[in-house]
Amino acid sequence: MDTVSLTGKDLAAAINADSKARAAAFAVAPRLALIVANADPASAWYVNSLRKAAERLGIACDTVDLGADASVETLRAELAARSADPAVDAIMLQTPLPAGVTLDDVSSSIAAPKDVDGVSPLSLGLLATGLPGFVPATAEAVIELLKHHEIPLVGKHVAVVGRSNIVGKPLAQLLLAADATVTVCHSRTPDLAAVTATAEIVVAAAGRAGLITGKHIAESATVIDVGTNESADGGIVGDVDADSVRGRAAALSPVPGGVGPVTTALLMRHVVDAAGNR
Amino acid sequence: MDTVSLTGKDLAAAINADSKARAAAFAVAPRLALIVANADPASAWYVNSLRKAAERLGIACDTVDLGADASVETLRAELAARSADPAVDAIMLQTPLPAGVTLDDVSSSIAAPKDVDGVSPLSLGLLATGLPGFVPATAEAVIELLKHHEIPLVGKHVAVVGRSNIVGKPLAQLLLAADATVTVCHSRTPDLAAVTATAEIVVAAAGRAGLITGKHIAESATVIDVGTNESADGGIVGDVDADSVRGRAAALSPVPGGVGPVTTALLMRHVVDAAGNR
Repeated sequence: MDTVSLTGKDLAAAINADSKARAAAFAVAPRLALIVANADPASAWYVNSLRKAAERLGIACDTVDLGADASVETLRAELAARSADPAVDAIMLQTPLPAGVTLDDVSSSIAAPKDVDGVSPLSLGLLATGLPGFVPATAEAVIELLKHHEIPLVGKHVAVVGRSNIVGKPLAQLLLAADATVTVCHSRTPDLAAVTATAEIVVAAAGRAGLITGKHIAESATVIDVGTNESADGGIVGDVDADSVRGRAAALSPVPGGVGPVTTALLMRHVVDAAGNR
Repeated sequence: MDTVSLTGKDLAAAINADSKARAAAFAVAPRLALIVANADPASAWYVNSLRKAAERLGIACDTVDLGADASVETLRAELAARSADPAVDAIMLQTPLPAGVTLDDVSSSIAAPKDVDGVSPLSLGLLATGLPGFVPATAEAVIELLKHHEIPLVGKHVAVVGRSNIVGKPLAQLLLAADATVTVCHSRTPDLAAVTATAEIVVAAAGRAGLITGKHIAESATVIDVGTNESADGGIVGDVDADSVRGRAAALSPVPGGVGPVTTALLMRHVVDAAGNR
């Protein structure tokens, strides 16, 4: 079977064109505060790409580097100060965080109206109840990519591999809201392939390179690869072993060029949305 | 096969004994405000049973009846006032709500430290992230009933039938936290039996009498019945057709006498916990 490549570039371009036009309509440009507290090269690369994306769309971006040794208290104080600052529309906290600090330790200090990556408990609770709020961009990107490629979700069985607070769990909520039957699998699932092979759509969001192979996939399934793992040569590779899945799956999103650009575009759209809350 | 009955009465009695001793240790008894805005006989019966349960445990209980025509604004104002009242430790909003009012319209007016049934967006977000907060009592009762009967969850495949904000969705979070693989099915799942029959544990929380029959259940599965549907004779019946499941399932929780008494006991335990936040 020919496996269709579910690219995200066209969709990202369309979202970005819309965001750029909307951003230009503000008397004062939408402003994102990007909080960093690590010395990780991959994070620095991603922060730089976010800054460039913002610049292209007419979004102001302040990068605040608190250093890799920042304490929970420092992070909370910075997030609370930006939440209270009327000049800042949107806040994003970059990971990884300093050793010993988890996202849950500090995320509640991001005010929900500025929480453009939907990481705070309140944002996640609004998502769980179906109330308006910002949804984690990566989870939303999976849904938007499927919609863009006209892959229906109503009544479909979707297996989500990974139960992180920023991808797997919020994605399960979005899929349920879209009327899919949803199975969440994870590292403690004893026979992963037995579960994923029963699904019509498999979303790989475990953060393990090459975890999902042909034997994990039903014939003609759709496969969405959320993984962004560093490869030996310094590039990124997904959670899906594309060579073994291709020819068996009906469709597969590439890494890079699938979920990734849509995630960045949605983050920037959220920043423009947040500016609308002024 | 002999199907074990997973009764909740012993567990509820043990929880209640502990709550009663803890409640007695407060100089001023823990106080629950029970907000009612309906004229539903089943609700009145349940409110009365909660009042009696509170009384037996030494918990003060104020019933506030806002009438079946209460507006969103009236409900929000009442919930906010009780949230701000230092004499009130805990707040529970009884359903059904007036026509046109949903729980999501008003639940965010319940302050999280008093939200003993875990219905507010913040409470649900704390649950999703694994942070401390009150968990919806019915969802928690399912987990506690399984633990009490020593039915392990790690690595087990659990099918939850129903995706309500107060049972199905929070239960899925608790099951994931307990390392189960979780599938959430619902009214838009095209072939329910095909999904539930692959699970080792099935939780019926759809609110439809007799929905789950023998054909929905794998041989030797464990079945938890969360349903409380009114029967023709004025009693309550579960979502499980017990006659058709018995003899096939390894274990089944009865209705009444299964999840129900544990739910009430956990609610009361939460009231005592909330009093500890004074």
